[in-house]
Amino acid sequence: MTVQSMTNTDTRDVEATLRQVSELEHAGCDIVRVGIPDTEAAEALSAIVSGSNIPVIADLHFDWRLAFLVMEQGIAGIRLNPGTITKKDRVAEIATEAAARGLAVRVGVNAGSLERSHATEGGGRVEAAALAASALEGAELMSAKGVTNLKISVKASDVRRTIEAYRLVSEQSEWPLHIGVTEAGTPWSGTIKSAVGIGALLAEGIGDTIRVSLTAPPVEEIRVGRKILASLGLVSAGPDVISCPTCARSDIDVIDLATRVEKALEGYKTPLKVAVMGCVVNGPGEAREADIGIAGGREGALLFVKGEMVRRVQPDDMYEELIAEVKKLLRKSGEGEGV
Amino acid sequence: MTVQSMTNTDTRDVEATLRQVSELEHAGCDIVRVGIPDTEAAEALSAIVSGSNIPVIADLHFDWRLAFLVMEQGIAGIRLNPGTITKKDRVAEIATEAAARGLAVRVGVNAGSLERSHATEGGGRVEAAALAASALEGAELMSAKGVTNLKISVKASDVRRTIEAYRLVSEQSEWPLHIGVTEAGTPWSGTIKSAVGIGALLAEGIGDTIRVSLTAPPVEEIRVGRKILASLGLVSAGPDVISCPTCARSDIDVIDLATRVEKALEGYKTPLKVAVMGCVVNGPGEAREADIGIAGGREGALLFVKGEMVRRVQPDDMYEELIAEVKKLLRKSGEGEGV
Repeated sequence: MTVQSMTNTDTRDVEATLRQVSELEHAGCDIVRVGIPDTEAAEALSAIVSGSNIPVIADLHFDWRLAFLVMEQGIAGIRLNPGTITKKDRVAEIATEAAARGLAVRVGVNAGSLERSHATEGGGRVEAAALAASALEGAELMSAKGVTNLKISVKASDVRRTIEAYRLVSEQSEWPLHIGVTEAGTPWSGTIKSAVGIGALLAEGIGDTIRVSLTAPPVEEIRVGRKILASLGLVSAGPDVISCPTCARSDIDVIDLATRVEKALEGYKTPLKVAVMGCVVNGPGEAREADIGIAGGREGALLFVKGEMVRRVQPDDMYEELIAEVKKLLRKSGEGEGV
Repeated sequence: MTVQSMTNTDTRDVEATLRQVSELEHAGCDIVRVGIPDTEAAEALSAIVSGSNIPVIADLHFDWRLAFLVMEQGIAGIRLNPGTITKKDRVAEIATEAAARGLAVRVGVNAGSLERSHATEGGGRVEAAALAASALEGAELMSAKGVTNLKISVKASDVRRTIEAYRLVSEQSEWPLHIGVTEAGTPWSGTIKSAVGIGALLAEGIGDTIRVSLTAPPVEEIRVGRKILASLGLVSAGPDVISCPTCARSDIDVIDLATRVEKALEGYKTPLKVAVMGCVVNGPGEAREADIGIAGGREGALLFVKGEMVRRVQPDDMYEELIAEVKKLLRKSGEGEGV
C-alpha cells in the first residue's frame, strides 16, 4: 500500500520542486505527482526525475501535445483526466506512446471536470455512476492500446459519492485503484473527510494507493495518509499512542502526558504501542496489551512493560519513567538516540 | 443519528460539570455521559440532570450498589460494562430495576476491560469475536429482564478490531449500536483513528449513535463527531468548504483564502457548500456545483453563485466578494449577522 502527494511549487523551479520532493520522501511519500501547466514545466521534468529518489508522475490536462513532450523526460507514469483532454483520438495516441514506453497510467476522473459525454444533461449533480463509467471507458481505451500498468481514480469532493463511485468501479473491474477524496479542504476538515472516505474504502478492501488532498503543505498529506493506513494496520507508522479521553474517574493528567509522549516519539519508525490511561477501568487492560503503558491510580500510576506491571510511579515521575522504558525498547530495535 | 460525549470534570462539582454540559450542548452534543466514581458523584447526578437540557447517561463500573443509587437520580439511562461488574446476579438486578424505570441501557464492552469469561486464555490479545460475544451476552440478559431501550458498544483502541467487532454484532443482532474507537489518542491521531473507524462502519450502514474519543477537551469530540457525520450526509454541520490542495497550476493563494473563509463561517448552521479552487482544471466544475464558489484563473478569479458564473474578481478582492455572496445566502436562511 503506497501513499502519494503532489508538489505545489512552480514545476519550472526545479530547485524548489526537488526540495519539496525530498521533504515528501522523508515524510514517507512513495510516489510524487507534479503538475505540468506548460512546455517549460514539461521540460523541467527530466531534471526533477534525475534528482528524485521516488517515482515521479506527470499530471496532464488540456494540452495533449504536452503529453508527448512529458513522456520523453524519464518519468514513471502519467495521470490523464479524460474530462480535460477532449479529443478522443489524441487520448488513444497518448495511450499507444505510454504503452510503448512501459509507463504507468492513471485514468483520473474527477467530479469537478467530468467529460461532457458522461455529464448529466443540464449540468446537474455529477453522479457516482457517471464518474465510474467515465473512468472505466478511459481505462478500457488505455488497455486496448497496450497499457498494462494501469490505475483508476474516481474522486468527488462529496465523501459518500466518492465511496459509491469506487465501489462501482471495484465491482466492475480488476484494475488497481488510486483512492482519495478530492478537494477535501483545510487540514482539520480535510483530514476528517479523507479519513472517512479513504478509511471506509480500505476497510472494504478497496484501494491500492492513496492520496489525501489537503489545502495545506503537501507533507501534511503524507502524515495524514500514513496515519490512515497505519490505523488499519496497512503500514507501520512508528509508535502509536493509545490514550483515554479522560473523565471524572481520571487520576492523572492524561492530556498533558499523552501529548508530551506523542511529541517525544514523533519521527521514530519502530512500531510500538504506548498506552497512557487515566484510571483503573480500562487502564490496566490497555496498558497490559501495549508494549509500554501507564495507568493512573489513586496511589500512583502503574507502569507496564510488555504486559507485565513493573512498578508503581509517582505522578511527577510518570513522563520520565515512561520515556525511559520506551527508550530501552527503541534501543533494542536500533533506534532510541535523542528521545 | 446522534453524537455523544462524556464530561471530564469532577462529577461531584455540579457547577463545573453543568458548565461543561452546556458547552457540549452548544457544540451539538445530543447525549452526555457522566462518570460516577463514588457515592458523592452519584448523589450529585440529580442536580446535573435538572440543570441539563440534553439526556444524561451515568457511566457505571465496579460498584454495583452505585447503580441503584444512580437510577434514582432522574437520569435518562445507564452504561454498564459487563467486564467491570463481575457479579452476574447483580447485573440481572440492575437490569430489572432499569426496566422498571424505563431507562435506556448501553451494554458497553471495551477491549481494555473485557470480562474474564470471554478473555483469551493466558491474557493475550482481545479478539473481535470475544468483544462481540461479551456484548451480546450482556444485551440478552438485559433484554430478558425487560430492558427495551437497549444499545450495544464493542470498542477497541485498534481500529480494525473495532470494525470487525461491530460487524459481528451487527450480523448477529438487531439492537442499536453506539459506535466509536476507544482511547483513540491525541486530537491529531485520535481524529484520524476515529474518522476511519466510525466512518468505515457508518459507510456500511452500521451505527446509530457515535462517540469520538479524544484526549482533549470533550467539546472537540463533538466537533469531530459532527464533521464525521456531516461528511457522510448524516447530519448537517453548517457550511462546508471544498478547497483544492493547490499544485503547480494554482493561480491564487488557496491555502490562505480557504482558511480565512472556513474561519469566517465557523458556528453557522445553514448547510452551504463553498468552493475555493486554485485553477481551471476542477475549479469551474466544483465552483459551479457549490452554492458559492471561486476558481482561480490567470486573469482574475471567477465567482460562481448557485451554478452561475456571476463575475470576474481581482485577487485582492476575492475574500470580500466571496464573503459578501455567502452573507446574502445566509441572510436568506435567517442567519448572516456578523459574518
